[in-house]
Amino acid sequence: MKYGVIGAGAVGGYYGSKLVNAGKEVHFLFHKHFDYVKQHGLQVDSCDGSFHLDDLNAYQHAEDMPPCDVVLVGLKTVNNYLLPKLLSPLLKDDTLVVLIQNGIGVEEDLQKLMPKVQLAAGLAFICCAKSQPGLIEHQCYGYINIGNYSCKNPDLILTVINDFREAGVDANEVEYDEARWKKAVWNMPFNGMTVALQTQTDVLLKSPHTMQLIKDQMLEVIQAAQACGVKNIDDTFADKMIDNTLNMTPYSPSMKLDFDFHRPMEIEYIYSRPIQEARKAGYRMAKLEMLEAELRFIEMNRKN
Amino acid sequence: MKYGVIGAGAVGGYYGSKLVNAGKEVHFLFHKHFDYVKQHGLQVDSCDGSFHLDDLNAYQHAEDMPPCDVVLVGLKTVNNYLLPKLLSPLLKDDTLVVLIQNGIGVEEDLQKLMPKVQLAAGLAFICCAKSQPGLIEHQCYGYINIGNYSCKNPDLILTVINDFREAGVDANEVEYDEARWKKAVWNMPFNGMTVALQTQTDVLLKSPHTMQLIKDQMLEVIQAAQACGVKNIDDTFADKMIDNTLNMTPYSPSMKLDFDFHRPMEIEYIYSRPIQEARKAGYRMAKLEMLEAELRFIEMNRKN
Repeated sequence: MKYGVIGAGAVGGYYGSKLVNAGKEVHFLFHKHFDYVKQHGLQVDSCDGSFHLDDLNAYQHAEDMPPCDVVLVGLKTVNNYLLPKLLSPLLKDDTLVVLIQNGIGVEEDLQKLMPKVQLAAGLAFICCAKSQPGLIEHQCYGYINIGNYSCKNPDLILTVINDFREAGVDANEVEYDEARWKKAVWNMPFNGMTVALQTQTDVLLKSPHTMQLIKDQMLEVIQAAQACGVKNIDDTFADKMIDNTLNMTPYSPSMKLDFDFHRPMEIEYIYSRPIQEARKAGYRMAKLEMLEAELRFIEMNRKN
Repeated sequence: MKYGVIGAGAVGGYYGSKLVNAGKEVHFLFHKHFDYVKQHGLQVDSCDGSFHLDDLNAYQHAEDMPPCDVVLVGLKTVNNYLLPKLLSPLLKDDTLVVLIQNGIGVEEDLQKLMPKVQLAAGLAFICCAKSQPGLIEHQCYGYINIGNYSCKNPDLILTVINDFREAGVDANEVEYDEARWKKAVWNMPFNGMTVALQTQTDVLLKSPHTMQLIKDQMLEVIQAAQACGVKNIDDTFADKMIDNTLNMTPYSPSMKLDFDFHRPMEIEYIYSRPIQEARKAGYRMAKLEMLEAELRFIEMNRKN
């Protein structure tokens, strides 16, 4: 099994490194930090045990990479327009591409651009960050769920899951639509609200007004999911997500980090697409529509 | 006719001064700026013609003021708990108190505290500010609508309107509920959104996302008004308000000025009360509920 990693930021870099550390063959595409990683390797500071990788299969150009059996994509969705070009050199007839990305609709859109490629969703539940070149800091959690979108070979999905487990990563197969929407229940309220109010998860839940607002927004996602045909979700899932968040350390979601570090925000796939899907199914997410508009305004008017 | 003005800030100060300038007897209660005004008088810099008032009937304490026929209240609603104490010395059996204030429910709440007092709403359409002691700057507009809430003497309302007209202020009698809700159609979107996104009216309307959001919020107020029994309003009123705003100069609504100058925001009467009234009538203002929660959060967490 040959693995490729496109977009070796914090998340892609972490899961790829875990596989390398367990003896798997992994080929990494680096962007800005290629030179640093080629010289110094990759350090993973992890709550599950830190380690250093010296001799990485690191590449600066996708066309130099070998064909792979599985490609993990850790790119931000704002760069997905690059994927056909970046993926092509790595693809064999039966390569599985796992999109470890946020939002609703990423597989659908990529499948339109690359009708033959086999796709799965990778849903990462992890707090990690790449605060400097060559250093991945993994604070907590770390499990990954895989949802099959268009892979005709179910054994390939199971192989990936087994490889992750051998590498010490808790991995499970999940139903695609249910998994993407369930992740949106947490992602849609917290990503945008921490940007709109310039705060963190714990502060939002300390004020009774925003606690109720977050819950209302979660219920909108649940209603939308149901309207879109996801059966296995009901209103109690919102309470569960609130309770989980109350038990987390104060946390800045990925969109807040993107905003703070002057990177574009993933508004399209985290907000616009699920809002459009719900509308097509006859349901309007009123409060999340408002949050989308606020984020678009913030993105358009920010100074950096 | 003796007029009293309680809360002689920009709005109360402007309308009171116009009456004085037309020869009416007006008694002003000043708070912070009493000493300055007593010594220097009051300067009104107005787009309709500037003027200076030297010898004002200015008071520092309500108990020193004479009984009045009409009292104009220009206090911020966050201070309405002071009104029974401030108004008492000025009241005769048939005094009319005109609340020139923002929001829904101010007359209802004051009537509960003072069951015998005759109340009317004063709906001011004016851009003015008090940027320094003794100086009222009136940039544009200026008309005032009066809606009778509990005045048993309709002639008294007409007298006030005539006095305003004699003073060069366009004044008209309007139906109370319709007028309060129509004003809320503009107030609810723009007051809060300029605070939530730290911007001005024109910038909100320049982005297509927030333009649509503002319109959606206006439609929520119109739906709420209809649910609360206001007949004379339909969805076209939102387009009219958007068009009016596009023709205005860039504008910071009163709540934005309150926020910028570290004063408490009038969240209760501009948001919470109309949201509650609509809920009682079976309608939920989803996006304005969200805005209320954001404003409560901002108020609770701001540094000043």
